[in-house]
Amino acid sequence: MDVIEVAGRSFRIRRAQASDLAAIVALLRDDPLGSVREAADLSVYEDAFGAIDADPNQFLAVVDDGSDEVVGTMQLTLLPGLSRGGATRLQIEAVRIAAPTRGTGLGAAMVEWAHDYARSRGATLAQLTTDKTRGDAHRFYARLGYEATHEGLKLDLHDGGSTQK
Amino acid sequence: MDVIEVAGRSFRIRRAQASDLAAIVALLRDDPLGSVREAADLSVYEDAFGAIDADPNQFLAVVDDGSDEVVGTMQLTLLPGLSRGGATRLQIEAVRIAAPTRGTGLGAAMVEWAHDYARSRGATLAQLTTDKTRGDAHRFYARLGYEATHEGLKLDLHDGGSTQK
Repeated sequence: MDVIEVAGRSFRIRRAQASDLAAIVALLRDDPLGSVREAADLSVYEDAFGAIDADPNQFLAVVDDGSDEVVGTMQLTLLPGLSRGGATRLQIEAVRIAAPTRGTGLGAAMVEWAHDYARSRGATLAQLTTDKTRGDAHRFYARLGYEATHEGLKLDLHDGGSTQK
Repeated sequence: MDVIEVAGRSFRIRRAQASDLAAIVALLRDDPLGSVREAADLSVYEDAFGAIDADPNQFLAVVDDGSDEVVGTMQLTLLPGLSRGGATRLQIEAVRIAAPTRGTGLGAAMVEWAHDYARSRGATLAQLTTDKTRGDAHRFYARLGYEATHEGLKLDLHDGGSTQK
């Protein structure tokens, strides 16, 4: 567990436990895209939580304000790879901040914490994708130094993507 | 090991072994971006290969034409996650085809193989990023059904990205 100080407030950042699952999913749902994309039934998330928790290259983080109320989450993945001279990458997914805590600087502090976490494990590149409709997110990451050098491509594997289906 | 048939030719696709490392790195170097980004010394790739090979969510694939000459490679990662209803994602990185084999349809067949591999392991979304300078790659993935819905953001962790550095 680490402590993040933001604008005079202290937050704790730690690895998520199964007891945090409902709070994390609530944060994923409280989002313009997540509200239509997330399931109502918590049970569909339980297997996924188990798979994340069992993988030593995964760190599902939660942030609380000391009162055990989860106010932020993000999923960090360490990706070993050969390209760029054998670079290990930090991939960041599913960054969410509780509505009352948005705009306080906590999001930036969480991402900076993620960079330090990744550097301490040998990563030399951070990467993420943001939906092109999330203009605020693009400005947020640009302020943190990210460059939009790549197209982020997605394909739903349910309904296509292979002539062999 | 699987067999891929493309335009009357048979290729084998299999998990990379340490003895394939020199051939894979040669493919990474034979690329407009890779030629300036990859190291001359093979030893920097050896630790990365070991980390990939030890991770059950990683599949570093090589393709040969039956003569033990590696003509293609790609790195597949299975990413468990909570968002999108607990979706497991297939992430594709470092797709490369040997110059004499480009344009034969092997690349498309490899990516379709990757989709089937991922579906068989429960993945419901495929994702990748391509450098915005790679116009041919964008058209290639669009033909396979990918949509450029996201911005792909990168940050070099060597020289910044944190106020705590």
